[in-house]
Amino acid sequence: MDRPLAADERLEVLVDLALAPGERAEELAAGLAREQPVELDLALVPERARAAAAGRVVEVEATGPRRARARLAFPVATVGGDLPQLVNLLFGNVSMQRGVRIAEVRWPAALLAAFRGPAFGIDGLRALCGATARRPLVMAALKPLGLSAGELAAIAGSLARGGIDLVKDDHSLCEQPWAPFAERVARCQEAVEAANRGGRSCLYVPNLTGPADRLGERVGRLRRLGVQAALVAPLLERLDTVRALAAGSGLALLAHPSLSGGLLGRRHGFAPRVLWGELFRLAGADGVIYPNAGGRFRFSRGECRDVAAALRGPLGTLAPAFPVLGSGMDAAGIRRGRRRYGDDTVFLAGAGLLGQPDLERGAAALRAELER
Amino acid sequence: MDRPLAADERLEVLVDLALAPGERAEELAAGLAREQPVELDLALVPERARAAAAGRVVEVEATGPRRARARLAFPVATVGGDLPQLVNLLFGNVSMQRGVRIAEVRWPAALLAAFRGPAFGIDGLRALCGATARRPLVMAALKPLGLSAGELAAIAGSLARGGIDLVKDDHSLCEQPWAPFAERVARCQEAVEAANRGGRSCLYVPNLTGPADRLGERVGRLRRLGVQAALVAPLLERLDTVRALAAGSGLALLAHPSLSGGLLGRRHGFAPRVLWGELFRLAGADGVIYPNAGGRFRFSRGECRDVAAALRGPLGTLAPAFPVLGSGMDAAGIRRGRRRYGDDTVFLAGAGLLGQPDLERGAAALRAELER
Repeated sequence: MDRPLAADERLEVLVDLALAPGERAEELAAGLAREQPVELDLALVPERARAAAAGRVVEVEATGPRRARARLAFPVATVGGDLPQLVNLLFGNVSMQRGVRIAEVRWPAALLAAFRGPAFGIDGLRALCGATARRPLVMAALKPLGLSAGELAAIAGSLARGGIDLVKDDHSLCEQPWAPFAERVARCQEAVEAANRGGRSCLYVPNLTGPADRLGERVGRLRRLGVQAALVAPLLERLDTVRALAAGSGLALLAHPSLSGGLLGRRHGFAPRVLWGELFRLAGADGVIYPNAGGRFRFSRGECRDVAAALRGPLGTLAPAFPVLGSGMDAAGIRRGRRRYGDDTVFLAGAGLLGQPDLERGAAALRAELER
Repeated sequence: MDRPLAADERLEVLVDLALAPGERAEELAAGLAREQPVELDLALVPERARAAAAGRVVEVEATGPRRARARLAFPVATVGGDLPQLVNLLFGNVSMQRGVRIAEVRWPAALLAAFRGPAFGIDGLRALCGATARRPLVMAALKPLGLSAGELAAIAGSLARGGIDLVKDDHSLCEQPWAPFAERVARCQEAVEAANRGGRSCLYVPNLTGPADRLGERVGRLRRLGVQAALVAPLLERLDTVRALAAGSGLALLAHPSLSGGLLGRRHGFAPRVLWGELFRLAGADGVIYPNAGGRFRFSRGECRDVAAALRGPLGTLAPAFPVLGSGMDAAGIRRGRRRYGDDTVFLAGAGLLGQPDLERGAAALRAELER
């Protein structure tokens, strides 16, 4: 937090309620407004504290049978400029109820100003990849788990030589015996640098998600190796790790959605655009990986577009972040994705690419698709 | 991780599947076994990597119309002794599917041996509270948000003098302007110590959940003040913060369930006993706060008992942890809770206590209930 928050600004939250038989929307909404900050019957809250910290219900609107949308307002000062507390305020104890979905947040300027967001953003990440021309970027993953560091580095080299813009560790790669972190990142970075000396400008994105007490050491190692970006899963880590890394690591950050799907229920949780599009960006992700509609995951086209719009749209003075769309991204998928999501997008090529007999050629074909 | 994991031990996971029309349980199970570690069509995975890292389906059993239970087995080495990766393996990308619930985990000895679990456990926490006699403990929370540090400290003093065993910060207290962290913890610890000089042995449990880059400084401050325990929300932080704190902070750790309810869907997510009872304990929580059945949250008696049993039952050589039951814990609730959960339990008194005109007397009445 860089400056104190004005106590009189309010964070407005639109909440979709799915009502159980006999539940009344107004009571449920009043409970939420109370539950999240003060968690006490308001009669027990001293007047001054109530005025300072209690939420209130702005309006409740029926949206269907046993469905309602409530607009709640919370004093911004309850957040205290603290990202974990922001998440707690939005969906802390309420997560243990049912049928409460955070559909939309209206971010007050004072709250946005307390967070710096992406350190690189779309333009910064483009610059790191040497991809300043207006085209989508293509990312590929080093996998599977079980390969040696040398085998993964060989894949990284082929992908980079073929013209893949960002080569990331699979998010499951951590400290397994076959390819321990230190050896893996050194060899993969070396392979990507060799390709770059041959005229490419690929960015290697190792997985930084890992033990809490080794994060600092790993960031130091990456910087010494010349690595300029890293993959972090904000829900396996914490959202605030992303913020701290964006502020202090010098690395561009790609956010991985592991575990976060559990918080994106249709009736209970966050709308994807709030969690992936706004909270991940607010924390400082320069790009957010999420599954495209129509793959083996369960998000709709509308939801996927909303996430992309939230990542790239106005959000205070925060830099825009790249949507990174995974799932089913072969050449045809990328063509469709480009029409759907536009040029400020990263496409994550998956099994279709890794299944090619000649990886470098497969990568080059995808890259050519983007240069059209 | 203290010693390398034997590559041939397997982590078995029982998964309840809710099938969409046309979905086949066997295919879904095979997808999960593949998805979690290698995330590739097995035909694309080199034989050696497949043998080392791929999961397999042990059996699939129909459990009802469009319901099945699958038993999956994953090589322990895929975890690499890394807690974020353990969570990723159990419910990482799968979180973005639907109808997948982690019902039970069979923990191999090699994996359990890689984690130390609670540093204090039930006996250690009893010793810190001077409550070695066989009785439940009682905890109360400092709230609401909006009070000053002095007002919160006055409440802490009354609760401690009345005989409350553990006085915790409300989980929403962080760095708000009314009671900033440094001032709040100093004054509350002082108030509790004063009560203890008068013959009590109350433990103050400040909220340590907060900015990633201030955690170390805050732990140092607590230790200098003589604070011996802290509250951490593992899902606002990360589970691995609990592990690192258990290993290195010297503080007893109480886990708060904020945000975690989103991962405990009836059809999708974790069974509460796996997340709260096993993963929180494995990480090192000495006590785990969760809502009792019948309150405003949505857990059944059976689920609440399963969590308590998991926290206290055998789990390798890990110390048992206290179930800390919140929601509706007045004297009558504590009497019922004691019959239901037994003496190795902490009861979290809530609004019923804080609403008393004489807080110290109210606290003493609850304590007397426990001494019966």
